[in-house]
Amino acid sequence: MSPHPQRRMRADARREQIIDEALKTFADNGYRNASIAEIAERCGLSQPGLLHYFPTKAALLAAVLEYRDRLDYDRLNFGQQLRGKEALIRLAQLVEHNTHVPGLVRLFTVVTGEAVTTDHPAHDWARNRYRIMQSYLRNGLDAGIADGTIRAGIDTAAVAAQIFAMMDGLQLQWLLDPERVDMAALFRAYIDDLLADIS
Amino acid sequence: MSPHPQRRMRADARREQIIDEALKTFADNGYRNASIAEIAERCGLSQPGLLHYFPTKAALLAAVLEYRDRLDYDRLNFGQQLRGKEALIRLAQLVEHNTHVPGLVRLFTVVTGEAVTTDHPAHDWARNRYRIMQSYLRNGLDAGIADGTIRAGIDTAAVAAQIFAMMDGLQLQWLLDPERVDMAALFRAYIDDLLADIS
Repeated sequence: MSPHPQRRMRADARREQIIDEALKTFADNGYRNASIAEIAERCGLSQPGLLHYFPTKAALLAAVLEYRDRLDYDRLNFGQQLRGKEALIRLAQLVEHNTHVPGLVRLFTVVTGEAVTTDHPAHDWARNRYRIMQSYLRNGLDAGIADGTIRAGIDTAAVAAQIFAMMDGLQLQWLLDPERVDMAALFRAYIDDLLADIS
Repeated sequence: MSPHPQRRMRADARREQIIDEALKTFADNGYRNASIAEIAERCGLSQPGLLHYFPTKAALLAAVLEYRDRLDYDRLNFGQQLRGKEALIRLAQLVEHNTHVPGLVRLFTVVTGEAVTTDHPAHDWARNRYRIMQSYLRNGLDAGIADGTIRAGIDTAAVAAQIFAMMDGLQLQWLLDPERVDMAALFRAYIDDLLADIS
């Protein structure tokens, strides 16, 4: 038990507030163009006050990305391995859900795009995230082959990479042109064709 | 005929040099984080010297994107409408070619990712580019339906959006993890499956 339960709670709430404001600022401006001073001001904090919680802008970005990943992993039921077609249907549901959280999608698109620039603090996060997500999905597809719901001979590693590529590319088109691009329908159609092909 | 052919030629060469250095700088750092002073220095120019050719950073970005588009359109044979499967095969060749020009691919990924941030000067370019490219590809697929090489009933607008999404998503994965991700093979496999499906 902490000796100061009330102050401790306030600190947790403050951390959440900072992460929330940082997420919006990074999504609006990109990470590199975002200013710690602006995020502090949005939180009603001084700059040293914010740096007490997150000592660098890179540390704050890491916290924002970890928060975002946790939301995704929860929605994907990452703790429990989805098998076969169920994994693909869950991804289509995730994309449908994403149409209701454009700020989170924008954060992801902005930061992964930036992450390919020189010495970006999110580079390793982005690279590892693809490796982890694709390995998770590949295992799900392999499980489908093992129980006979997906036909053998599918290159499950390639399909896993293609599915996340399709998801990311449609997100970008949707963010740029939301009136014209129905991201959820386009992704669902892709998954439906894929399900028909691999069954 | 210009009254000063020699000076005119030098100015054209200078413009090309500035575009080339700006392209590298935007790809390395992103547009927002790039500095006109640094680009000028790379060109051996003063900052006012560079601004004589491109009055703003946004004008320079526009010139870089126009240059990049021209390369793409030439490779896609954009002037002459490709029909049916030929259009898809040409896109697979473009992705294969892109593996040899990582700087151009990186510029595209960085700038389109940034373009979804607030008030970005490349927003309209990026949105319109998808509209134009997809309309071009859709026309090619429709021509394939008209001459019987692609089966009727295909949603060619959806397929066109999906193809560019796949291309962009694989570019991002490849830039982040070039040793692991074989972008050209993954895209080619996607196109081959699609060709089998729509024939």
